Amino acid sequence: MTVSRQPYGAGDLARLLAPRSVALVGASPTANSMGARSLANLARFSGRVFPVNGRYAAIAGLPCHASLDALPEVPDVVIVALAAPQVEAVVADCARRGVGGVVIYAAGYAETQTAEGRAAQARLAAIAQESGMRIVGPNCAGYAVLPAGLLAGFPEFPAPRPGPRGIGLVAQSGALGLALSQAAERGVALTHVLTCGNSCDVDVADWLAALAETGSCAAVALTWEGLEDEARLVAAARLAASRGLPVAACRLGLSEVGAAQALVHTGSVVTPPERFPALCAEAGFVPVTRIEALMETACFLAKAPARPQAGGVAIASGSGGTAILAADAAARHGVAVPPPTPTTVEALRAVLPAFAAPRNPCDATAQVTANPAMLRGVVEALLADPGIGALVCPWGKAYRSDNIAFLGEAARRHGKPVCLVWMSQWLEGPGTTEAEADPDLALFRSLDACFAALAAWFARDQAMPRVSPDQ
Amino acid sequence: MTVSRQPYGAGDLARLLAPRSVALVGASPTANSMGARSLANLARFSGRVFPVNGRYAAIAGLPCHASLDALPEVPDVVIVALAAPQVEAVVADCARRGVGGVVIYAAGYAETQTAEGRAAQARLAAIAQESGMRIVGPNCAGYAVLPAGLLAGFPEFPAPRPGPRGIGLVAQSGALGLALSQAAERGVALTHVLTCGNSCDVDVADWLAALAETGSCAAVALTWEGLEDEARLVAAARLAASRGLPVAACRLGLSEVGAAQALVHTGSVVTPPERFPALCAEAGFVPVTRIEALMETACFLAKAPARPQAGGVAIASGSGGTAILAADAAARHGVAVPPPTPTTVEALRAVLPAFAAPRNPCDATAQVTANPAMLRGVVEALLADPGIGALVCPWGKAYRSDNIAFLGEAARRHGKPVCLVWMSQWLEGPGTTEAEADPDLALFRSLDACFAALAAWFARDQAMPRVSPDQ
Repeated sequence: MTVSRQPYGAGDLARLLAPRSVALVGASPTANSMGARSLANLARFSGRVFPVNGRYAAIAGLPCHASLDALPEVPDVVIVALAAPQVEAVVADCARRGVGGVVIYAAGYAETQTAEGRAAQARLAAIAQESGMRIVGPNCAGYAVLPAGLLAGFPEFPAPRPGPRGIGLVAQSGALGLALSQAAERGVALTHVLTCGNSCDVDVADWLAALAETGSCAAVALTWEGLEDEARLVAAARLAASRGLPVAACRLGLSEVGAAQALVHTGSVVTPPERFPALCAEAGFVPVTRIEALMETACFLAKAPARPQAGGVAIASGSGGTAILAADAAARHGVAVPPPTPTTVEALRAVLPAFAAPRNPCDATAQVTANPAMLRGVVEALLADPGIGALVCPWGKAYRSDNIAFLGEAARRHGKPVCLVWMSQWLEGPGTTEAEADPDLALFRSLDACFAALAAWFARDQAMPRVSPDQ
Repeated sequence: MTVSRQPYGAGDLARLLAPRSVALVGASPTANSMGARSLANLARFSGRVFPVNGRYAAIAGLPCHASLDALPEVPDVVIVALAAPQVEAVVADCARRGVGGVVIYAAGYAETQTAEGRAAQARLAAIAQESGMRIVGPNCAGYAVLPAGLLAGFPEFPAPRPGPRGIGLVAQSGALGLALSQAAERGVALTHVLTCGNSCDVDVADWLAALAETGSCAAVALTWEGLEDEARLVAAARLAASRGLPVAACRLGLSEVGAAQALVHTGSVVTPPERFPALCAEAGFVPVTRIEALMETACFLAKAPARPQAGGVAIASGSGGTAILAADAAARHGVAVPPPTPTTVEALRAVLPAFAAPRNPCDATAQVTANPAMLRGVVEALLADPGIGALVCPWGKAYRSDNIAFLGEAARRHGKPVCLVWMSQWLEGPGTTEAEADPDLALFRSLDACFAALAAWFARDQAMPRVSPDQ
């Protein structure tokens, strides 16, 4: 619909991402309505908030304005919580007034697969192109900048959880974005939840480019179904790479039925499945094939050094069974688990009980329960091995342990990623929050997700020349 | 080492599974020692408990006995919490006295890969064969019958969580068994945790056969690395099938490195990887390739009817993105997602908003948030479709909802499995416990795990004739 263009950057999206004022057209006191939920979300915002609805004098304690005309200023952002037939006139009015950006929730556009729906969406796109006002949507859930308390959408966004190594989440689908954003409830340091639905103007490439330019997160979790212009996403990816911002990417619609479903969801025409790995290679994305692994993979990328020091992975475990499973997963993902050097073997022998083998994988046996220092010795020996670029530590039982902090500290000291793989089915049991909060310790709940991430981390290093930062 | 034999059944293992008395040789007051942890576990047991250790008059308030000689009776079970050199004499003594079964924690046997270790293990096996006393271990963590409060092992077993559709967990590896058993902490109704380590006598086949005979659980989660006698496992599987007890199975050591690791873990020689699917087909097991999915798959089998009514799966979602992902996962696992019949289309049209498509997958759109009854109408229409054998419902947000109970009720009424797939990254968020507790609603946290389980459920039905119960 629109012409091919470079991604919008932080400048183009500045009024959306850091507004001084937000108006909500369609503000409502009706419980559970989108208007009421959006207004509740705006209560966290420190800027000026203007509910707009001619039927009320006040809503939720805020004076309500009859129309955009009645506002004391031109707002940076206008959220349009109206049904499709009323949307276009309001959007055109916003553009005339010089609003910075609008958010459109309404469905009934390209995703209906009707000529009318497509035409209505094209008219919105044209308003954006002609005015320079940015549009998020239609058929979208809005977006959130959590550290700023800016929740410009109707979902129940998570509370901000301060922490280093924050994750910016970019999701075309609003419901999926919300599902993924709830990782914050179990301890993930999330900074942004940026959705775009049908993407008549702002799309996932634009959100990614803006995150790269603002430098406000340490890694991006990106998911989308269709793109009008893949070249724009590659351009955004190059920008991210030049700023050292890693991206974990998961594309929806990799099957025939899934692709057909994408068409009726956001009106997106998806490219063939084989395009996904090719695009990731071109863009330097770490591909994620299972959505469940997207947030953990992004957290790994936020915590791992940019490049590996060596190509092998060591496995340190207090359980033979999990060591076997880790070796199996490494083999499935083509990750090398090399034998330790003689020096490492000697160091392992010095700390292991007599009946444990100084190998890689290294099973320190159940003795680590009674003697937690033993695991530390094993970890030290393996991380010091020059053939080892990363350490995987399957963790059998949910419990708080000083060894969790030790693993993060060892990762920092050696400059090598350490991945704690939570084998316990107590998925949010004691110890998980500590691991999540450590700035250098990556937490996975799946050996496959862990080794897939490691394999992609090694492969990206092999494939890409060292990018020199452009500033 | 031992001759091929039929699996032990509930009768052979009766004194282990339902003892009246348990003695603990190597009872200890030393914090964190295996002796102390085992004694703490026995505090939940309602039968008679006899700590044995010549160095103490009493431990933890219980009178301590100097030796087995000093006990007032022959115990049904003796737990041997001693190092390897002291074990054999005690075990031989137990056999002479007529003990029912012993549990051996000590490592240092076949898993050391030494002639001495193998010979020591063979002598233990010979004691079991000659005396008829059963041995669990060596190099094992023990076992637990949770509803009876019998925790005959050193790990921190979960508290029993009463509920229908209980899961019996059989795990060769103790640490892995413990990791999986912690599913109980997030709501899984676990009945047994049965480990066997090096399996010089009792092995996973025996534990499975005993569960089949006692009928004390609704499904089994089974994991092992090596088996001396695969035919015994197939015999146990046939017994389970004849009693209508479904089994989800995950074998460790499916890679070269993993298989080598199994040898140093429990001294197990593993069969080639391709043997795993063949064995599952022969045994009627539902194969699970990723350990993370084992407990969820077992819960699905405990809750699903034995056989599907039709071969198609319907997908009902309140989010287009998750509907696409579900369709992708169905395609990956070869599960049919057929178009609805005209009657179903009509029924869907009657409940859906105008802008939503009456298809399969059916995306009821974000309107379900404001109007939860809409999802119910969609679920009813799809479950009533004669081409549909199961329903998958991706669930985007963690929240308590009456619709969770409704989904379980609909599964019961239609006699078709309903799978709630938790897309939220708030993995134990509000709503999960309710779903887990529902006797007919299966909960998965991965679309792949869900569709792999459904594919295996359909395939098992195709492959196996209807088994007539033998009693």
